[in-house]
Amino acid sequence: MTSTPTGPSAGLPSRRTLLSGATAGAAALAVTAAAGPGTANAATNAAPAAPPAPAATGSDWETCLSVARAILVRDAQDKSLVPYYRDVLLSKGLPRGRRAPKKVLIIGAGPAGLAAADLLHRAGHTVTVIEANGNRVGGRIKTFRPGGHERAKAPFADPKQYAEAGAMRIPDSHPLVTGLMDGFGLKRRPFHLVDVDAQGHPVNRTWLHVNGIRVRKADYTKNPRKVNRSFGVPAAFEDKPAAQIVREAFAPVRKEFEGKEGTALVEGWARVVQRYGHWSMFRFLTEAAKLDERTIDLIGTVENLTSRLHLAFVHSFIGASLISPDTAFFELPGGTGTLADAMYERVRGLVKLDRRVTRISHGEHGVEVETVSEGRDGKPLVRQTFRGDRAIITVPFSGLRHIPVSPALSYGKRRAVTEIHYDAATKVLLEFSRRWWEFDEKDWKRELERIRPGLYDAYRQGRAPADGSLLGAHPSVPSGHLPDNQRVHYAAHRAVARDQPEAARVIGGGSVTDNANRFMYQPSHPVEGSKGGVLLASYSWADDALKWDSLDDDERYPFTLAGVQDVYGQRIEVFYTGVGATQSWMRDPYAYGEASVLLPGQHTELLAHVRSVEGPLHFAGDHTSVKPAWIEGALESAVRSALEVHSS
Amino acid sequence: MTSTPTGPSAGLPSRRTLLSGATAGAAALAVTAAAGPGTANAATNAAPAAPPAPAATGSDWETCLSVARAILVRDAQDKSLVPYYRDVLLSKGLPRGRRAPKKVLIIGAGPAGLAAADLLHRAGHTVTVIEANGNRVGGRIKTFRPGGHERAKAPFADPKQYAEAGAMRIPDSHPLVTGLMDGFGLKRRPFHLVDVDAQGHPVNRTWLHVNGIRVRKADYTKNPRKVNRSFGVPAAFEDKPAAQIVREAFAPVRKEFEGKEGTALVEGWARVVQRYGHWSMFRFLTEAAKLDERTIDLIGTVENLTSRLHLAFVHSFIGASLISPDTAFFELPGGTGTLADAMYERVRGLVKLDRRVTRISHGEHGVEVETVSEGRDGKPLVRQTFRGDRAIITVPFSGLRHIPVSPALSYGKRRAVTEIHYDAATKVLLEFSRRWWEFDEKDWKRELERIRPGLYDAYRQGRAPADGSLLGAHPSVPSGHLPDNQRVHYAAHRAVARDQPEAARVIGGGSVTDNANRFMYQPSHPVEGSKGGVLLASYSWADDALKWDSLDDDERYPFTLAGVQDVYGQRIEVFYTGVGATQSWMRDPYAYGEASVLLPGQHTELLAHVRSVEGPLHFAGDHTSVKPAWIEGALESAVRSALEVHSS
Repeated sequence: MTSTPTGPSAGLPSRRTLLSGATAGAAALAVTAAAGPGTANAATNAAPAAPPAPAATGSDWETCLSVARAILVRDAQDKSLVPYYRDVLLSKGLPRGRRAPKKVLIIGAGPAGLAAADLLHRAGHTVTVIEANGNRVGGRIKTFRPGGHERAKAPFADPKQYAEAGAMRIPDSHPLVTGLMDGFGLKRRPFHLVDVDAQGHPVNRTWLHVNGIRVRKADYTKNPRKVNRSFGVPAAFEDKPAAQIVREAFAPVRKEFEGKEGTALVEGWARVVQRYGHWSMFRFLTEAAKLDERTIDLIGTVENLTSRLHLAFVHSFIGASLISPDTAFFELPGGTGTLADAMYERVRGLVKLDRRVTRISHGEHGVEVETVSEGRDGKPLVRQTFRGDRAIITVPFSGLRHIPVSPALSYGKRRAVTEIHYDAATKVLLEFSRRWWEFDEKDWKRELERIRPGLYDAYRQGRAPADGSLLGAHPSVPSGHLPDNQRVHYAAHRAVARDQPEAARVIGGGSVTDNANRFMYQPSHPVEGSKGGVLLASYSWADDALKWDSLDDDERYPFTLAGVQDVYGQRIEVFYTGVGATQSWMRDPYAYGEASVLLPGQHTELLAHVRSVEGPLHFAGDHTSVKPAWIEGALESAVRSALEVHSS
Repeated sequence: MTSTPTGPSAGLPSRRTLLSGATAGAAALAVTAAAGPGTANAATNAAPAAPPAPAATGSDWETCLSVARAILVRDAQDKSLVPYYRDVLLSKGLPRGRRAPKKVLIIGAGPAGLAAADLLHRAGHTVTVIEANGNRVGGRIKTFRPGGHERAKAPFADPKQYAEAGAMRIPDSHPLVTGLMDGFGLKRRPFHLVDVDAQGHPVNRTWLHVNGIRVRKADYTKNPRKVNRSFGVPAAFEDKPAAQIVREAFAPVRKEFEGKEGTALVEGWARVVQRYGHWSMFRFLTEAAKLDERTIDLIGTVENLTSRLHLAFVHSFIGASLISPDTAFFELPGGTGTLADAMYERVRGLVKLDRRVTRISHGEHGVEVETVSEGRDGKPLVRQTFRGDRAIITVPFSGLRHIPVSPALSYGKRRAVTEIHYDAATKVLLEFSRRWWEFDEKDWKRELERIRPGLYDAYRQGRAPADGSLLGAHPSVPSGHLPDNQRVHYAAHRAVARDQPEAARVIGGGSVTDNANRFMYQPSHPVEGSKGGVLLASYSWADDALKWDSLDDDERYPFTLAGVQDVYGQRIEVFYTGVGATQSWMRDPYAYGEASVLLPGQHTELLAHVRSVEGPLHFAGDHTSVKPAWIEGALESAVRSALEVHSS
């Protein structure tokens, strides 16, 4: 009836242990396998009880080391697993000459599920991938686009246009995903986190718009005083750009591991985990970095820390190292969805769409997975049961919470499923018939005068009508996409600002604002054959995102446009096509959140339980890596879980 | 162009100040009024900058005192404001003989807006209440019911049935709301937080169902060892009920103020705020109470702390004091909505429904509020602008975030609007044709045998079909409410458990489970003329709630029923009518969350800014009190803001 906790996680220390005994030596963990069902299991239907409380000494440091190894993708000897994972995923496949082929069920056709399916299939196993969506694979790789494997209708007025609902940028420090794209022959091109000029050089001319001050990012970096003073920061910080304040706050922590290799590197990270694993970012910034609340507000607003201040320091610290102006990012022409297309193509015959898992049973005999179809649009419901020797579960734990597993999972796994925090992220995209952010003033004058002589000056002087009558007024805007009601809504929600800043004149990059939109990104490249573009007009996380999530999708567009006008001026309205697209990951019925963003303490308490094997059940997905929300993390987990299934 | 920060909040200390200097003396705060627009405001459209960073000493303690006074509803001399508020609200009204009548706009017709409107109207002011909802007032007082002021259709199969989407229990320690109900002649009756027997005596027979163990709460309290061991708690806690562990953890903190009065009481609370105001509950339990992670998991699961561990200690500490088995609660026959009816009746002529605020402008001249109608069901949109001398804004800050205010609010207010954390809460209600939770085994046998001879034993032996064919099978279930698709969904999502526990035999009260439902409440009283009842089948908060919120409303019912079956057994299905109702407060378009549940540090950093007056703009609503989510807090704020407007 009960499954025995497995793996090195069984003897995780209690939190008190972790906090008190600072056993800095790397003593080997005395792993005590839990002694089967405890007394508590006498009840019918009893779930496995917790293993006995661990001994009070000796295991802290080992837990921190194991978290550090997970962060760095190292094995128990501190050796990087990445070269081996790369070989397996990209060239050699799973090791040959192992045991008999197995029947493997993979739940979820996101990148983790698709990659694991391909590996196991190529190694001779019988694989079935069970996907809840009726029309697409890819999970949080999702491109609003016409066609693709999902055969979607054109989502924008210009049928050539597309935009990302999910994954949109691939760091070049992620070897598995970049290697996979190369292997598929998908040509990647730069994603401009920082805007560039016509020659492709970073210029950082996008706007920083906070406390009513609008300044080019490059100018802010040169002279931050005005913005910083608007937050009331102490004199010592008046002349320091926010990014530098963050860098300096993190510097002492970075010193623990910077420039180190092998075991020294792992131990450096383990010290960070031991010291700060149970801290929130708020606590770190106040008590370790000793920043005052005004400075925290400055860096939180400008460097996107505010909405996650209460979440784990470790998470944002890793993220802040990764997403910096120094990181090179890539994107795929045609959208990240083309990666899902390519991955799907390899395993298409193995994937059962429209099968939502409603129950998982497991035991000596193997695994049984019950499903039901979506039954949308009045289609009759279909129930189907799948059987296999093993299963790889890639469903986010926020979704697994609603899937009964019988017999119950181990105590540690159940805690992880229940408690791992999932964060919200929301995108609102707006389509424009011209890429006005690339305009200079001459372009603006020419195009506005085409609508009505004098309109250019009218906008510059705040005299243009604000009643919505100029929405989509440019001749390039195709008719038929802007209902009258939207016009009224736009007039009602129009931007407050009537001043007109100078033309943005940027390619790619993005602006930061303290209004509800928070972050905006311009497309890095034109869509071939289209003079228009889709702006990522609002990208927000955590509490910032949840405030958008309470609005119906259609209500978001007027708010969003007004927020963009706040930053770029009213005149952009003439190019708005009336078409938007939006994605609330927290409201997505199969994603249940953007990604697992752990709370203070969860790295040391729960991470090992997230990925531990439970009898015939294996666990993959980005949440089982320490790269939540990144395709790379999903791929790492795909290789790990495929190896587990294959070699056992 | 800029508004000057006002009120005692202008000189709030920086976070660093608060954390370092422990100036325990009650030195008076040297409030420095901010010196108007700073240099940063040179930009067009500039928002008010932050006041200069405050001096590094002397203000900490004063801030903590002011938070303590807000918690205790005391004035600057530490005298309780409640008797005065009670007089104003319930008998005497606003003071006479003050200044000239004003034109007052009140945004939001929840209890705060309705009560403030009534007070100001009776004092001779001209009042308009602007409400976004097209068909109802009451805000987070919302009863799923037929009729009422909102003239709703019957939401359940039995047209007599009703259930609460929002406020459902009124503590007897809340004098404003209980007094208001009495004043309206609304008869209150007990709400049984703990279940009672037929004689009305608390028996605590509802279930605690965790780690696969099902035990009556009263039995758990007598002998907690089995459950506690299933969490792996240390030996010292094996024989202590979870509630007692929580009480003992909080006891040293309570000592700071228990048994104290007046200034000593305020200072006791101020010490709590100073010490723990920037702590999360997680930090308190680990570092102050020194509990291990297993014990925290036990009390978190049983006493509902887990999902809010990362939020402010102060919030849950206050809540845990209030919601205990010792608190008496009341409810209103016909639902809490009858209180909204009565409040609405008094001011009906002043309320404009279907007017969603899209912009607020203010200045010397007064206030201008622009609105737009919902335009649902294809109705043409209507825009309307309201003008007044003053406005009381009761909109939750999570919603105010999307309403442009011009000129911009003060720096502190903007931070509060942006950063105050709003929590999620979700209810799922299921209707049954019989109140089976009140049955004994004889009742069960009689009723099940009416469906099919032998069915009683079939359920007890786990032999009844689990294919959904017995859903709503009892002759008392009216036909026509259970579509075939729902039957398939129920079969797919049926409960894992096939064991049948003994009959619950309880009136009122609720069960606790570690499955996704988390908390269940039985109705405390029958609905007159109905043999059925609506079960609050799942009530969850924070992360627990957000996992439900990603499911479409209709998908929630099968999951919820299965979760109830997990606790009470499969046989309850025969009474299910096929009708549910659900409320996700985070997804409500005008509530934007359950309530403001502050993050660590926000009480000291932001609370003063939440309620401070900004020129002609006043702020009310439960979030401006330290009783978020409680009607009492909304009423306190109504009296405070009405007094502000009236006496200025």
